[in-house]
Amino acid sequence: MPIAKPIEYADASAEVRAVYDDIMKTRGSDWVNNFWKYLAHDPKTLRRTWESVKEVMAPGALDPLVKEMIYVAVSVTNNCEYCIHSHTAGARAKGMTDAMLGELLAVVGMANETNRLANGWQVPVDDAFKVK
Amino acid sequence: MPIAKPIEYADASAEVRAVYDDIMKTRGSDWVNNFWKYLAHDPKTLRRTWESVKEVMAPGALDPLVKEMIYVAVSVTNNCEYCIHSHTAGARAKGMTDAMLGELLAVVGMANETNRLANGWQVPVDDAFKVK
Amino acid sequence: MPIAKPIEYADASAEVRAVYDDIMKTRGSDWVNNFWKYLAHDPKTLRRTWESVKEVMAPGALDPLVKEMIYVAVSVTNNCEYCIHSHTAGARAKGMTDAMLGELLAVVGMANETNRLANGWQVPVDDAFKVK
Amino acid sequence: MPIAKPIEYADASAEVRAVYDDIMKTRGSDWVNNFWKYLAHDPKTLRRTWESVKEVMAPGALDPLVKEMIYVAVSVTNNCEYCIHSHTAGARAKGMTDAMLGELLAVVGMANETNRLANGWQVPVDDAFKVK
Amino acid sequence: MPIAKPIEYADASAEVRAVYDDIMKTRGSDWVNNFWKYLAHDPKTLRRTWESVKEVMAPGALDPLVKEMIYVAVSVTNNCEYCIHSHTAGARAKGMTDAMLGELLAVVGMANETNRLANGWQVPVDDAFKVK
Amino acid sequence: MPIAKPIEYADASAEVRAVYDDIMKTRGSDWVNNFWKYLAHDPKTLRRTWESVKEVMAPGALDPLVKEMIYVAVSVTNNCEYCIHSHTAGARAKGMTDAMLGELLAVVGMANETNRLANGWQVPVDDAFKVK
Repeated sequence: MPIAKPIEYADASAEVRAVYDDIMKTRGSDWVNNFWKYLAHDPKTLRRTWESVKEVMAPGALDPLVKEMIYVAVSVTNNCEYCIHSHTAGARAKGMTDAMLGELLAVVGMANETNRLANGWQVPVDDAFKVK
Repeated sequence: MPIAKPIEYADASAEVRAVYDDIMKTRGSDWVNNFWKYLAHDPKTLRRTWESVKEVMAPGALDPLVKEMIYVAVSVTNNCEYCIHSHTAGARAKGMTDAMLGELLAVVGMANETNRLANGWQVPVDDAFKVK
Repeated sequence: MPIAKPIEYADASAEVRAVYDDIMKTRGSDWVNNFWKYLAHDPKTLRRTWESVKEVMAPGALDPLVKEMIYVAVSVTNNCEYCIHSHTAGARAKGMTDAMLGELLAVVGMANETNRLANGWQVPVDDAFKVK
Repeated sequence: MPIAKPIEYADASAEVRAVYDDIMKTRGSDWVNNFWKYLAHDPKTLRRTWESVKEVMAPGALDPLVKEMIYVAVSVTNNCEYCIHSHTAGARAKGMTDAMLGELLAVVGMANETNRLANGWQVPVDDAFKVK
Repeated sequence: MPIAKPIEYADASAEVRAVYDDIMKTRGSDWVNNFWKYLAHDPKTLRRTWESVKEVMAPGALDPLVKEMIYVAVSVTNNCEYCIHSHTAGARAKGMTDAMLGELLAVVGMANETNRLANGWQVPVDDAFKVK
Repeated sequence: MPIAKPIEYADASAEVRAVYDDIMKTRGSDWVNNFWKYLAHDPKTLRRTWESVKEVMAPGALDPLVKEMIYVAVSVTNNCEYCIHSHTAGARAKGMTDAMLGELLAVVGMANETNRLANGWQVPVDDAFKVK
């Protein structure tokens, strides 16, 4: 359960509404998801986080679907329930199929396992992997 | 520093050599990286982990480069130094450019930030994200 | 959902009641929060944890409000729902305002992000930061 | 060991130098620490991260020393060696004494312990802590 | 809340049913727990994970109860609610008493605390602990 | 590298020496490992942590070897290099064989994998696992 109440559009300051408006416009959507309604308690963080997410998730050297799947991988590793839901929804909207989701989670599981095997044995980095 | 010594090919049992041989054959390589030389202390885990990694990382609904980048994302989130080195090397070998690496790490950083913002406020999952 | 039932005062042993009594007396309160009612299944851990928390959170070189905010920062990073609730309540009771909470979470988010950027690149520690 | 080489001022693009210059000017310093020299491989992330850190760490409802100590608390919980070094140095520069550092780490340790005790028993949040 | 629906026996493919059947037969049970019903969305991962868990958790140099308690320790550290419930149930079925559970959680808590104290001070490994 | 210098016996206060003496006496050893020499910067935390570890790790419902292996499992999951070394040494001293270590790490790896598979699908807890 949340530690505050969400700030709805009707109750938001002009500063907060401007971010909400940009979120809806950018997404071609008529609603704002809960994440932003809680960040709105700290308008600077709301604005900075939205601008940062927009920049980071924009098409670039990686396509937006790959970025969303990386987001899911991190969120699963950290067990962020909200982020798992919002970013699997985002990835599905960008074309992730059920088969892709299944493989994504399989890789996340395997990486978490071998991370601990490598850390458990404290395996030293091979010379071949070192930056010359 | 490691908690054991690596098991080199010359000192390995037939069971362990069989896995080393398959690793080299599968990769078209003439060496085995350290990770497997430590797992070799537990031959069952060596074999099972190698078979699992082969299956999970094979081409499927996701291409192998995307899988390697997801592996890097998890390894960075967990701070597994060995895995960061081995899987960024793996991803580079499959075509990851410097620009792609930069964006990958940017997404990983951003996801780790917003995971904590969502968890900090304990943001409830929107109805729109719930499975019907 | 919990993995056991809470141990209420009426059902507690003398050993457990003594800790509950000290919790209420120390806080000038007439109730004990759930955390201790579950630890009570292991009376030694109940007593040791309560004595430790009392010692660690007492005024010292850091004031109690700063200590509570550090507690929140760790709890958010680890995603401990119970601890996020109990320690934001504790911090509010000691004077944390909404603006302070917003900045606290912003720092926690940013630190989680840059922790992964530093670990991702495996940035070496500058000589200037090393202990002489 | 790092997965890339640092980008020194002499080799940096105008875009990167502009950030380096602002870092030095803002801090009244004549050098840039390694963190930024690796982020420089991704100039957008370099600029965004620097602007974000400046905004988040500025004096506000929380004073900069408290913010630095929160940064240390998160970095210790995540075991980011680089960040532990850079932010304990930052906190010392802002007035953190040895006694304050000792208490900070004691709180971080205790919070990590009780986070697991609460999660282990899956302790339910008390009604008294719920937002009305 | 889950991100997909469980796949019940009646709706499962022959491949998935074969795993469900083996789970029930191996356990001498007439039902399959939810974990497998979600993995079933990715039949390869279902099969591989079941085969791996069977191999890893079988009696060996460690007895199955100790293995279950180690599983609980990891699940508590990572805060996996599902795994905490399923593996404390598994450990109880293999003989874990309430007193053993209490001590197990106490060790998990203490280890999480001292892990951060060691990482916080960045304590160097003693020569006596190094592999010769 | 550490963020402070260790406090050697010759330079320690009477309060710190008393703890060092008890560590050596309890263990029948003539030296103190580094962990305590860094905690000594905060004598209260040194004393409290030592007393707590003694109590938690004492024989009880679980035997000391099982407790050491649980300590290793947590330390590997959190990647605490120091703790991995000190507690695998401790477990070996109490009888952990190479085969037991191999199985311990295999369970830790598997648990970290299935924790993420369960969290990734957000698998709901079965009714059968709920406390009545």
